[in-house]
Amino acid sequence: MNRRAFIHSGSSALGVAAIGLRVPQGWERIIVKGDRLQDNLERLGAIGRTAEGGVRRLAFSEEDIAGREFCMALMHEAELDVQIDAAGNIFGRRAGTNANAKPILFGSHIDTVPNGGKYDGGLGSLAAIETVQVLGEHGYRNRHPLEAVIWCDEESGLTGSEGYAGRLTPEALARVRTDGLTLAECIARIGGDPTRIEGAAHNAGDIAAYVELHPEQGGVLDRSGVDIGVVQGIVGISHYEVELTGFPNHAGTTPMDQRQDAMLSASEIALAVNRIVRSVAGTHVGTVGRLSVEPNAPNVVPGLVRLTVEIRDLSNDKIDLLWDRIRTDAEEIARRQDVEINYERSTRVAPAMADSSVQQVITEAASALGLSSRAMPSGAGHDAQVLASIGPMGMIFVPSVGGISHSPLEFTEPEDVVNGANVLLRSVLRLDRV
Amino acid sequence: MNRRAFIHSGSSALGVAAIGLRVPQGWERIIVKGDRLQDNLERLGAIGRTAEGGVRRLAFSEEDIAGREFCMALMHEAELDVQIDAAGNIFGRRAGTNANAKPILFGSHIDTVPNGGKYDGGLGSLAAIETVQVLGEHGYRNRHPLEAVIWCDEESGLTGSEGYAGRLTPEALARVRTDGLTLAECIARIGGDPTRIEGAAHNAGDIAAYVELHPEQGGVLDRSGVDIGVVQGIVGISHYEVELTGFPNHAGTTPMDQRQDAMLSASEIALAVNRIVRSVAGTHVGTVGRLSVEPNAPNVVPGLVRLTVEIRDLSNDKIDLLWDRIRTDAEEIARRQDVEINYERSTRVAPAMADSSVQQVITEAASALGLSSRAMPSGAGHDAQVLASIGPMGMIFVPSVGGISHSPLEFTEPEDVVNGANVLLRSVLRLDRV
Repeated sequence: MNRRAFIHSGSSALGVAAIGLRVPQGWERIIVKGDRLQDNLERLGAIGRTAEGGVRRLAFSEEDIAGREFCMALMHEAELDVQIDAAGNIFGRRAGTNANAKPILFGSHIDTVPNGGKYDGGLGSLAAIETVQVLGEHGYRNRHPLEAVIWCDEESGLTGSEGYAGRLTPEALARVRTDGLTLAECIARIGGDPTRIEGAAHNAGDIAAYVELHPEQGGVLDRSGVDIGVVQGIVGISHYEVELTGFPNHAGTTPMDQRQDAMLSASEIALAVNRIVRSVAGTHVGTVGRLSVEPNAPNVVPGLVRLTVEIRDLSNDKIDLLWDRIRTDAEEIARRQDVEINYERSTRVAPAMADSSVQQVITEAASALGLSSRAMPSGAGHDAQVLASIGPMGMIFVPSVGGISHSPLEFTEPEDVVNGANVLLRSVLRLDRV
Repeated sequence: MNRRAFIHSGSSALGVAAIGLRVPQGWERIIVKGDRLQDNLERLGAIGRTAEGGVRRLAFSEEDIAGREFCMALMHEAELDVQIDAAGNIFGRRAGTNANAKPILFGSHIDTVPNGGKYDGGLGSLAAIETVQVLGEHGYRNRHPLEAVIWCDEESGLTGSEGYAGRLTPEALARVRTDGLTLAECIARIGGDPTRIEGAAHNAGDIAAYVELHPEQGGVLDRSGVDIGVVQGIVGISHYEVELTGFPNHAGTTPMDQRQDAMLSASEIALAVNRIVRSVAGTHVGTVGRLSVEPNAPNVVPGLVRLTVEIRDLSNDKIDLLWDRIRTDAEEIARRQDVEINYERSTRVAPAMADSSVQQVITEAASALGLSSRAMPSGAGHDAQVLASIGPMGMIFVPSVGGISHSPLEFTEPEDVVNGANVLLRSVLRLDRV
């Protein structure tokens, strides 16, 4: 099928004028080759396949390297200029017609958690290659340089995108990982050059836009039957460490009214976190995910409990408001139970907002394809949150069945794979007309 | 001072007639040598003293052996017939005038926890030696054989008393301990003979009575200002293992109303255990002492929580009633939170009741000395619970300041030490007249 037949000029009927664009309507009829994309997903998913049917392709492993070679071969087939930067990121570049235009980046990662699925990262990476490939096959002449990117080592710390943003410090590079190698050694192993890491760095304003397609990793789209999630931003994350000190009395000899039971305080606090978080409208979440007890013996009243409270939202103000209420309740609980309470914020990752124009482009791209969409936060971290500091960022979510993520059971329906890739393609086309 | 001057016949004015006894009133004026007892407590407490001022005299260790030699030397000074039985228990025996009378046993243990105090076990052991020594010094002619006993290895499993009751199985003797030795090797090391362990065994009815003096290990006496605790029995202990299975969703991407959070169920259950246990009158206790979370990460909704519920009471019926209520509540909590619950009883130690006549003897002995007393359960385990299967058992508690036990901070006031020893002495005297 030769879609060049659709090439002609004209204003868009799809509302792009609302953000001041004029694009040739015909280019918008280009769609991805769904069978090829699905086939590539299966082929990449076979690299590092686990006994449970999942994927183990840890960053910098042999499987990761094999996956990267597979992707670079696809880029070559797509006639892209393939390069690995100093941080180990892979770029498949197609030059643009406008010498002054900044590049439009789109991509994801291909490393996985120890027993993950084939869509997390793989979908966005392969859809990016498919996008630029199919555009080339249709003879589309892009104004901006288009760069399909595969960020290295997303799962253990957004390594590649951090390098792209110039944030990989000598300390970070020298840190020894669980496999016994430094991060620098790992990056060198996959073709990066940690000795000139600054060569990978970019400044704010260096790119026209960054767009990433990803499965949702939650069940919002799947449950609501909505085709496309237009990400408003990647939530900020604050972690609080709470320590409750009671007294580890003998559980047989200490009457009930003479105890300072840190576990009872912890239980009330865990319930308070849930109650307070749910009492305020919004998409924020709060979790007591880690909890440890000392001495942790059936016959000793818990003398010490440490627990974490994690709160995520697109607004640090909202996070602060929720923590303030939780803290107030927790102090009252501890006072009433004669338990000492200490807490501190151990982590604060700032929210990273998606660019409103890019959100609008994605929304309209979905609409033009007859797909339903909804705005939503990303509760999980992504390379896109780092890219937001370099240029306008947007993310496209597609449903993951049951909201399952980081599991061999992760699954996105074939039609959602193709829908997501087409929304990516159409968004890139629209961004290219700016 | 020669207390023989007090020796004369006559009925007791102290109410012993209430249990059908006639004793020479004068013997009851014998009291222990408090300075000697205190001095011996200090000397034994110096064996294995820790940097924190506690005692480390683990069963079968060099320190334990040194402590045992110290006690045997005291027994020899007291002109007792000293023997180590096949299970490693030490007996200091003084023959009685009545050839058919069964022995009266009284004693405790001298092994300690890794950093314990000098009163737990040491007090009852040395007061037992003091009792039979002072009786000898006053020329008291006991009808029953009197046996001051030091049970071996109380802290890690009532080993010596179990051997006395004929319950040390070949499997128990062959079990390798944390120090790499089998229990049999340990017993041999301290002068026992595990190859003829049955030589240590006794049957129900073999003894006239067993009495043990011990610090309370809780704060009931100390707080209430009562001098003597008359133990009603050693509580039964039931342990229940509860397993809650939710789903370990991503804490960032899973909306609050879509979670199956096992930690929230566990928190509600921990609070329910406390509420239910406290809602019923009595001295029973219930504790959630051990709790573990999986995957136990700040950013993952707890998918699995395992916790223990321990209930102690003098009545298994009461324990069963409490567990039934807890179980019912826990099942309702799990159902409401869409979490799967499983549970099983992992341990049941039966209550061991003190003999009512021995309790009466102890109560009257305290009263005769002008001491206040109260009946109370022992929430902690003791060798006495094993002896209850061999003959009438009683225990005397004295206050431990702050209820502190198994700690270098364990402390019993000198007057309480002497009070307890005198109640022991007087109880033995009264039991000897039966």
